[in-house]
Amino acid sequence: MKVVIVGAGFGGLRLARKLNNKPGFEVVLVDRFNYHQFQPLFYQVATAGLDASNISFPLRKVFQKSKNVKIRLAELKQVIPEQSKIITDKEEINYDALVLATGADTNFFGNTQIAGHAFPMKSTVEALQLRYQLLQNFETALTVTDPIVLQRLMNIVVVGGGPTGVEVSGALAEMKKYVLPKDYPELDFSAMNIYLLEGAGKTLAAMSEKSSKQSQKYLEKLGVKVMTNSLVKGYDGNSVLLNNGEQISTSTMIWAAGVKGNIPNGVDKGLIARGNRITTDRYCRVSGYNNIYVIGDLAYMETPKYKTGHPQVAPVAMQQADLLAGNFKLIERKSNPDTHYEFEYKDKGSMATVGRNLAVVDIPKPKLHFGGFIAWMIWMGLHLMLILGVKNRFFVFSNWLYNYFTYDQNLRLIFRQFDKSEKK
Amino acid sequence: MKVVIVGAGFGGLRLARKLNNKPGFEVVLVDRFNYHQFQPLFYQVATAGLDASNISFPLRKVFQKSKNVKIRLAELKQVIPEQSKIITDKEEINYDALVLATGADTNFFGNTQIAGHAFPMKSTVEALQLRYQLLQNFETALTVTDPIVLQRLMNIVVVGGGPTGVEVSGALAEMKKYVLPKDYPELDFSAMNIYLLEGAGKTLAAMSEKSSKQSQKYLEKLGVKVMTNSLVKGYDGNSVLLNNGEQISTSTMIWAAGVKGNIPNGVDKGLIARGNRITTDRYCRVSGYNNIYVIGDLAYMETPKYKTGHPQVAPVAMQQADLLAGNFKLIERKSNPDTHYEFEYKDKGSMATVGRNLAVVDIPKPKLHFGGFIAWMIWMGLHLMLILGVKNRFFVFSNWLYNYFTYDQNLRLIFRQFDKSEKK
Repeated sequence: MKVVIVGAGFGGLRLARKLNNKPGFEVVLVDRFNYHQFQPLFYQVATAGLDASNISFPLRKVFQKSKNVKIRLAELKQVIPEQSKIITDKEEINYDALVLATGADTNFFGNTQIAGHAFPMKSTVEALQLRYQLLQNFETALTVTDPIVLQRLMNIVVVGGGPTGVEVSGALAEMKKYVLPKDYPELDFSAMNIYLLEGAGKTLAAMSEKSSKQSQKYLEKLGVKVMTNSLVKGYDGNSVLLNNGEQISTSTMIWAAGVKGNIPNGVDKGLIARGNRITTDRYCRVSGYNNIYVIGDLAYMETPKYKTGHPQVAPVAMQQADLLAGNFKLIERKSNPDTHYEFEYKDKGSMATVGRNLAVVDIPKPKLHFGGFIAWMIWMGLHLMLILGVKNRFFVFSNWLYNYFTYDQNLRLIFRQFDKSEKK
Repeated sequence: MKVVIVGAGFGGLRLARKLNNKPGFEVVLVDRFNYHQFQPLFYQVATAGLDASNISFPLRKVFQKSKNVKIRLAELKQVIPEQSKIITDKEEINYDALVLATGADTNFFGNTQIAGHAFPMKSTVEALQLRYQLLQNFETALTVTDPIVLQRLMNIVVVGGGPTGVEVSGALAEMKKYVLPKDYPELDFSAMNIYLLEGAGKTLAAMSEKSSKQSQKYLEKLGVKVMTNSLVKGYDGNSVLLNNGEQISTSTMIWAAGVKGNIPNGVDKGLIARGNRITTDRYCRVSGYNNIYVIGDLAYMETPKYKTGHPQVAPVAMQQADLLAGNFKLIERKSNPDTHYEFEYKDKGSMATVGRNLAVVDIPKPKLHFGGFIAWMIWMGLHLMLILGVKNRFFVFSNWLYNYFTYDQNLRLIFRQFDKSEKK
């Protein structure tokens, strides 16, 4: 059985590993990048706390000893279900089963003005670009004389009060507090404002009431200006326009306000559901096709417990990968379809970190909530466990230890390219 | 006394540190990058053995506690000696003394065809670009059917048998031996050729006869095809044309065949000497100006011992920085110019590494030569000592330990940007 998996995120990579060296399976794993990206820590790459390589794991390293997994660094261009094949920018690949695990990208909700100026944070490269922008702003600020331009360079607006928005705001606030005044003694950081805008009435709206309240309290303690019930209408690169007409001047708007599924060409448009996701049955199978599956952030599956789809988080993707691995083995053994597993998400909890010693953790069964230092320790331990590779784990841990004891994010490096023609 | 230093390489950074918090001095350090680059290890970044951040040290970190050193991330556009000021892309800066430490860049000897297609390795960013190209070649090779194109992707040509060329050839040969066959089991690496082309009759021509011979022996042991007395005439991105008419097919030609000084605009063209360097007197002072100095790779100084200028290596730059720091203090104290120090280079030796346990070291006084494992240990110890910052040292050492024991260069990551417009 030839399984083609598109996307090496939490879902796709997990499935490939589960099928690795399993008799009867031939696997092709297709991704645009040659590494697995550990999304939960993008914000630490953006705020110079971690190296991009610390949270990126080379795919070929994972499958070095594999006899049945091939990796293709390519971009999916088209699915042709009638011929059971996909077309990438490099070649055509036939499949017996196709698993779409292309995840989700930033959703600008059709606002091209915002899309053209905001900084998203949905890939390692985007996180690096945000880092370069943040650092470059302060460098530029040193020689700026116009106070309006100066204020614009000093302000940062984060849009979206979910985990990503909360985490990046907190990390920025800590940079402002511990690092930036030492790096730029010529600048007055009391004039620097970090705004967190959230459309709903509270931060971390998907978590418990306690976590929402605590996260806002922590953020405000760190000096973040949390503005709930605030919707962004426009952004021209200089000024954020809110729905109520208010404006906030900034050169840097970070957009963490929503995601939408990366739907490949060739999938029936009628199957597209809320959040630009593809509707599947309880077997992660795309309705109308008997050999195309979707897992992770791209999948939209309704169950009695999750009537409007599952949360777009790593554990869902990983559990769906496990389900598919099991079902594929049953299919390979030609078992009765009645014996196939139906997906049921086991929610083990959720968490978010705001800053040093400040995090929130909700566990559903038994219903528990942790805040502060304990939550922060849980958050760190769990993330270290989830990171792929002993070496990456070691380097992330070393960086965290270093940052913790020195109050310093040490990777303030702008690796940008110079225009060679200009130099000559 | 206001000292403006352009360039934060080994010379410029050292001088700024020597003048740091010294009474009577105000220092402005100008660089295009916000970090100091540890050039001797670029080749390990290119061959995925080290992270770019491991050998890059944020300048603002060095001077966090400084009362008199300002850093400007800017590009020097013009020197105006008559007004004692420089113009950068950001602002104008006046000086009492100007120190040009802009170093040297790759010299393509006027061959624009080569310049347009070859990979230089004179900055961290260039080293990263080379890394991406090397990895991308093998990814592309997987789906190539034309045997001619395949061979071109598998071949690598390194031009220049100096330390950089020798070191990168050796590292590539080790990748070929230990890493690539495991990463790309679908490719036949016995068909991969690494050529090292050197115009002179031997590799490491500036070192001792023993070192030259040993380095060539080590390279050949690792499978590098060393071709001495070979001059490159042209390269169109597909095929290297040699002076004798021979051609070598390759998509990747690494150019380490020469450097030329980065001469700023505004310096009298009559002062330009061999290697595009600026002629100075024994006080590192540019002839004809009494307050402009040049140190490091950009400086051309004749002494009885070095009749055609000094070697363009870090120790010269650092010793010249020390000299200037001393003389500036004398100038500040208004000492008699007769008491100023004249530069005399103390050569403590030179070294190059070819691969694991394979290096060569020459020490002039007492005249000593080391090869193999001992030389390799000396090389590593010295480079670790020279790297700035405890954290970088720790991470470089950890990476080296990891690479040594696992026979693996783990940073095979392509952080390239995708064209967003294409994606939509």
